[in-house]
Amino acid sequence: MKKYLITGFSGFVSQYFLDYLESIAQLSVILGVSRSEPTFDYASYKYVKCSFKKADLLEKSHVDDIIYQFQPDYILHLASYSSVGFSWQNPVDSFANNTNIFLNLIEQVRKLGVKCRILSIGSSEQYGNIGHYPLSEEFVCKPVSPYAVARVSQEMLSKVYSDSLGMDVIMTRSFNHIGARQKEIFVVSSFVKQLVKIKKYNLTPQITTGNLAVIRDFTDVRDIVRAYHLLFEQGKKGELYNICSSKGLTLNQLLDKICDILDIKVEIMQNPTLFRPNDNMVVIGSYQKIYAHVGWQPEITLEQTLQDMIGYWSDNI
Amino acid sequence: MKKYLITGFSGFVSQYFLDYLESIAQLSVILGVSRSEPTFDYASYKYVKCSFKKADLLEKSHVDDIIYQFQPDYILHLASYSSVGFSWQNPVDSFANNTNIFLNLIEQVRKLGVKCRILSIGSSEQYGNIGHYPLSEEFVCKPVSPYAVARVSQEMLSKVYSDSLGMDVIMTRSFNHIGARQKEIFVVSSFVKQLVKIKKYNLTPQITTGNLAVIRDFTDVRDIVRAYHLLFEQGKKGELYNICSSKGLTLNQLLDKICDILDIKVEIMQNPTLFRPNDNMVVIGSYQKIYAHVGWQPEITLEQTLQDMIGYWSDNI
Repeated sequence: MKKYLITGFSGFVSQYFLDYLESIAQLSVILGVSRSEPTFDYASYKYVKCSFKKADLLEKSHVDDIIYQFQPDYILHLASYSSVGFSWQNPVDSFANNTNIFLNLIEQVRKLGVKCRILSIGSSEQYGNIGHYPLSEEFVCKPVSPYAVARVSQEMLSKVYSDSLGMDVIMTRSFNHIGARQKEIFVVSSFVKQLVKIKKYNLTPQITTGNLAVIRDFTDVRDIVRAYHLLFEQGKKGELYNICSSKGLTLNQLLDKICDILDIKVEIMQNPTLFRPNDNMVVIGSYQKIYAHVGWQPEITLEQTLQDMIGYWSDNI
Repeated sequence: MKKYLITGFSGFVSQYFLDYLESIAQLSVILGVSRSEPTFDYASYKYVKCSFKKADLLEKSHVDDIIYQFQPDYILHLASYSSVGFSWQNPVDSFANNTNIFLNLIEQVRKLGVKCRILSIGSSEQYGNIGHYPLSEEFVCKPVSPYAVARVSQEMLSKVYSDSLGMDVIMTRSFNHIGARQKEIFVVSSFVKQLVKIKKYNLTPQITTGNLAVIRDFTDVRDIVRAYHLLFEQGKKGELYNICSSKGLTLNQLLDKICDILDIKVEIMQNPTLFRPNDNMVVIGSYQKIYAHVGWQPEITLEQTLQDMIGYWSDNI
């Protein structure tokens, strides 16, 4: 029976990972850790035996206790302050809660000599404005936000622990992932919620946004967690993998798609004060490497994902 | 009168910077900050009015007080746990005392809206094993130690604050700098001290070392601080500069040079347990960019520097 430690357990992604293990009937023992209690029911799975422990990964003693007592086979390190916007407002906290928490974790694993595979989750934000597409793992990152810097730093640390200290680390650059239950500080969830609200309550069809010209590459969170599972099982030690759809869409096009599904028309007001100090203009990735190594490619269409997000917000406004 | 904030004031480099200001008779007000009291006399300069404040840059409130009260024109950010060896033993502390302290500092400057030029000191360690030489600023870093990662992270943060937030930051990659009074945790100072001791007390001429095949590029600390001053005065905002001699030497050759000056012969025992988990094999930089921008090049010969270090240790063993 495989033992997984999942950090950032109360966040958006972990429940989908549990759902995936359950769907393939994989007997698993999970320890979820997070600063806040999870709001979902993690105790009612059939194949997945899951417990939760409140912990702050900035506290070395917490990390030490967790690793020593649980002795995981796999660590899915989801814990992150993953909002780019937040990182512009609070670069110090963003950095600590991305890079420092990861370093605390991996260093404790090394010190205690626990043999496990660590999945170090990174972000497409790392790339920056490179100017040729699709973005491929060997491209040199030019991070333009504090969040992006924190993620590149985490990846460089992962490389040192893997290449120099021989630890079993796999790195990802996970592109924008979306799905039901995602917090509305993230752009697509925010759009869907606002538009569902307009439709449901027949409000003035107006929406205020940041820069809609940026191009992003969206993947359903269920496809993402399937990739994580495949990487645990078959990924190559020390390697870095993009996880993406390889399709680019402006936020404007995305907004249109949601409006089409909802069958509404809205007036869009782009507010330059909502623009970021600097941003990646075009993010389109290549998933050729992960496909070549473990056979992963996205399966869920964007339309399906948006439908599911609309369904969620329709039930939860 | 220019106001300089110098972090890491009790370290190796700051006294040389004060000496340099004094030597050019530049009226200056200095606030030195450090966790520990400086052991040198900073109050007896004629042109340099210097005070000291104990502070921990990991404490945001300390940083806030310093920046707000002193309102510097220039910040010479020397504070660093700059030992590569230490970073292998204590990666968490090394990272915090390189990257996090820098982020705390620059973010506080931004928040308080203080207009000043910040010199973000980096290291040749950042490059890693690139395979072609001399190392030039546009090369892509491949850091192989926790210390190197921390320095690359600091540089990326500097870029974000400069390019995205418009702050006046200049970055360096300062290569190995050496001189009298350097702590013996650094290799050249350690060699000189041991060899001076052998000579002085007629001890068994034996010395145990780590890997002597690595090639390094050494610059006198007095040349280094002159470069820092030039960059404050004439360096270009947002630019990155190597500071180096452009000459490579194996540690073995360096050891021979010291022995020659001391006129002794020693038996060298390389101890593989002292080798690092991973290391930069060849570090030779190019100073063409800083020469082109501000006219800097090294002036003090290696022989002179070693003579001065020998003189220092002869008086201080």
